[in-house]
Amino acid sequence: MAEIKVAVLGAAGRMGTQACAAVEAADGLSLVARLDRGDEITAGSLSGADVVVDFTVPSAAEANVHAVLDAGAHAVVGTTGWDDASRGRVAEHLDRCNADRADGSGLGVLIAPNFGLSAVLAMTFAAKAARYFESAEIIELHHPDKVDAPSGTARHTAAAISAARADAGLPASPDATESGWDARGADVDGVRVHAVRLRGLVAHEEILLGNPGEQLVIRQDSFDRSSFMPGVLVAVRAVVDRPGLTVGLEHVLDLT
Amino acid sequence: MAEIKVAVLGAAGRMGTQACAAVEAADGLSLVARLDRGDEITAGSLSGADVVVDFTVPSAAEANVHAVLDAGAHAVVGTTGWDDASRGRVAEHLDRCNADRADGSGLGVLIAPNFGLSAVLAMTFAAKAARYFESAEIIELHHPDKVDAPSGTARHTAAAISAARADAGLPASPDATESGWDARGADVDGVRVHAVRLRGLVAHEEILLGNPGEQLVIRQDSFDRSSFMPGVLVAVRAVVDRPGLTVGLEHVLDLT
Amino acid sequence: MAEIKVAVLGAAGRMGTQACAAVEAADGLSLVARLDRGDEITAGSLSGADVVVDFTVPSAAEANVHAVLDAGAHAVVGTTGWDDASRGRVAEHLDRCNADRADGSGLGVLIAPNFGLSAVLAMTFAAKAARYFESAEIIELHHPDKVDAPSGTARHTAAAISAARADAGLPASPDATESGWDARGADVDGVRVHAVRLRGLVAHEEILLGNPGEQLVIRQDSFDRSSFMPGVLVAVRAVVDRPGLTVGLEHVLDLT
Amino acid sequence: MAEIKVAVLGAAGRMGTQACAAVEAADGLSLVARLDRGDEITAGSLSGADVVVDFTVPSAAEANVHAVLDAGAHAVVGTTGWDDASRGRVAEHLDRCNADRADGSGLGVLIAPNFGLSAVLAMTFAAKAARYFESAEIIELHHPDKVDAPSGTARHTAAAISAARADAGLPASPDATESGWDARGADVDGVRVHAVRLRGLVAHEEILLGNPGEQLVIRQDSFDRSSFMPGVLVAVRAVVDRPGLTVGLEHVLDLT
Repeated sequence: MAEIKVAVLGAAGRMGTQACAAVEAADGLSLVARLDRGDEITAGSLSGADVVVDFTVPSAAEANVHAVLDAGAHAVVGTTGWDDASRGRVAEHLDRCNADRADGSGLGVLIAPNFGLSAVLAMTFAAKAARYFESAEIIELHHPDKVDAPSGTARHTAAAISAARADAGLPASPDATESGWDARGADVDGVRVHAVRLRGLVAHEEILLGNPGEQLVIRQDSFDRSSFMPGVLVAVRAVVDRPGLTVGLEHVLDLT
Repeated sequence: MAEIKVAVLGAAGRMGTQACAAVEAADGLSLVARLDRGDEITAGSLSGADVVVDFTVPSAAEANVHAVLDAGAHAVVGTTGWDDASRGRVAEHLDRCNADRADGSGLGVLIAPNFGLSAVLAMTFAAKAARYFESAEIIELHHPDKVDAPSGTARHTAAAISAARADAGLPASPDATESGWDARGADVDGVRVHAVRLRGLVAHEEILLGNPGEQLVIRQDSFDRSSFMPGVLVAVRAVVDRPGLTVGLEHVLDLT
Repeated sequence: MAEIKVAVLGAAGRMGTQACAAVEAADGLSLVARLDRGDEITAGSLSGADVVVDFTVPSAAEANVHAVLDAGAHAVVGTTGWDDASRGRVAEHLDRCNADRADGSGLGVLIAPNFGLSAVLAMTFAAKAARYFESAEIIELHHPDKVDAPSGTARHTAAAISAARADAGLPASPDATESGWDARGADVDGVRVHAVRLRGLVAHEEILLGNPGEQLVIRQDSFDRSSFMPGVLVAVRAVVDRPGLTVGLEHVLDLT
Repeated sequence: MAEIKVAVLGAAGRMGTQACAAVEAADGLSLVARLDRGDEITAGSLSGADVVVDFTVPSAAEANVHAVLDAGAHAVVGTTGWDDASRGRVAEHLDRCNADRADGSGLGVLIAPNFGLSAVLAMTFAAKAARYFESAEIIELHHPDKVDAPSGTARHTAAAISAARADAGLPASPDATESGWDARGADVDGVRVHAVRLRGLVAHEEILLGNPGEQLVIRQDSFDRSSFMPGVLVAVRAVVDRPGLTVGLEHVLDLT
């Protein structure tokens, strides 16, 4: 496979700096441009990049992606703040770019709310396993400076478990509790999510699935930001062969 | 040490049956009487027992203990349902029994809400460690047929941690959470307790203590009722040398 | 879907008794025959069973399966002791049975070394995830009366992880250890397997996968034999639509 | 209590830098001197420090401590490399310093192989609990660049558990294993220690104690070096009231 040329937007930020280093260290990838606030995004400034990685800010990300597509490159986006409307506009832009390609090739954009492989795999496996267990609950654990509870990742996991249970015709998890509903966390689509806040922790999630006489626990620990880089590299390598819009790293993982 | 003669009240019940078997299998103990509902408790029916173990029902336990003391034996009580008043009457009865003993000997009664060594040790260690950590939270996990949340053991643990933190002058555990307080569990004296209910589990408790860069986790698992027997044996061996009323197995454990 | 009629061989044994109860309690299944040692296996004695579940002994299982096929029924086999030769003979027998079926229907046999859903899912997910992590190690934990170490399940899991890593072109997990190789366990195809033996435990497995800054842990707990029954029911429902020989419950789980 | 004045040796090193910051941020402590390689240790250069913290190198630590005592200050030592002979010389020096003090006051030196509160507490609690459990095993988990296995902390923990079991007259943990002793780790005084090496981990230890039907697990996680600072502060505050030589942070923790 030919080498993939990569540009990074937000290259001076915390995530962007790590992304540049990860690309430089990776087999088969080469870093051809580092752009930051104020730099214009053009075919020229991107130096012929095949894939552009965006770790900027929510207010800039959508415009960046449109400029990247206009410059003829694929995009991998780690910046948050997307909604149905902004994702829809990117999908339409991709349709226009790829309209004339009858061969299944074309530009791709991959937007990932989470590049942590362990987090994405935990969520994916939990959803796959859910139909086989009578009970399912989630414990997420984070540092105590986190403002929201439960975490977005835990909410997504709970929603995915809930959908899988509904699809398999499972009733609600059994629960005889008569009182005591004042702990940190929430009921997300019928799945109980517990939120622990503890000094020393970073970001962790534990999914518990139970049947009579057995338990399956899927736990993931994110100890620091470096953990996102393997997922970024997976995304960069995958997006060149995946025309159109993809939301979620799980869709480009090979789990067959 | 001379052999300790033991009688069991509620000998035909689930816990009593196991207690009889455990006493019979233990070095230095011999089972001299099995009594059940309808049997009178007298020096005669107890067959000279040094220690009487009560696994009956809350409505009978206090009367049983007074009868055991009248018969001149020590008591180890695993039956629940005690309050300040009933404990006070037992303490007074013991005072009368032991009034003439200047030598520090005398009859003893040990009432234990929990004979599980792992549960009692987890609670005790958590309370001792609490003063050294910025954050403390508890997760208790039980089968889904449990009606109350959080469990009594978790409430006791939280109260002990809270008292230790107050004693050491610690502020509340840090917590920036702005919303999301609808999960199973409670705030017990300022310590967050999360309650998980999952088919396949029995009774488990996990205490999490956190500082910058480190975590101490104390976890105990009770897989079945047999787990209470080592604690019963510890209590039987200890009560003969511990005149007066003792509440809680932790007071007779050697943790120096 | 029409009701599936089920017969159980070894119906008086520990697993067979539970299998009978599980079938009787299951929606869409009915128990039509219980056979045990000495009972002949014929179309008559099987009472028209669609599926026959075998929980007998290694010395009887292969002959039982051939008799079940001769009687025109599918088989689900939980009995151990199979090797390539005996599996080959069953596959040939199935080929003969199904030779005239051009429609993809036909008799099926499912042999499962492990019916524990949590164990099978843990192994399957670990193998799928393995290609995405730099390090992989396994801890299996069992009661101390177990004679072999590491467990068969842990060996299978390690072999599956090793194959997935090789397939993805990963090198060996990094390891700077210079000395200290005397603990219970083994190196299985380059994956380190640690074997813990502890009173109170039953059968547990924990797979640890690590990248810089993150960890994925997949843990399964088998607390008692009842945990195998959901997997038996999955197998019974699947085998009627899966002609030919299938080895391993994972092949009939819906993990898409 | 009057403010404690603190000097740090090795103030420019990784641990020393953090120690300076921790002292400056702590209530009741003030940092009065930072010394590094080449600086002479005298009453003058220590600026009247009550307590001197040493995070230098093994080849310098002993001489540093003698100089600190000559300057009339207490010492807290985190530098490794001590043996019986060097500890003996410090103890003798302390005896001479404190010979004329009839009031129980005097200079103190605290040498701690580990300032991690969670690590020290885990080891201490495991040793206290060990006498009450039939089985005990240890799993230590570290990054894969570690050269030795098992870790020094795990070896100390195993030795403490072994001593406690022997003291209580317990036999060896039950173990029917007939083969399979090739995993990373060791038998330390009869206690099995398993050593896991995994990218992403830092330093972790899990002590498992088992009885029929129950398990007690004490786990500690050291995520980064900052975790040692709370222990350093505990030591600084304790050493001023603890004349003579103390080896091990556990001796100055209040665990009553």
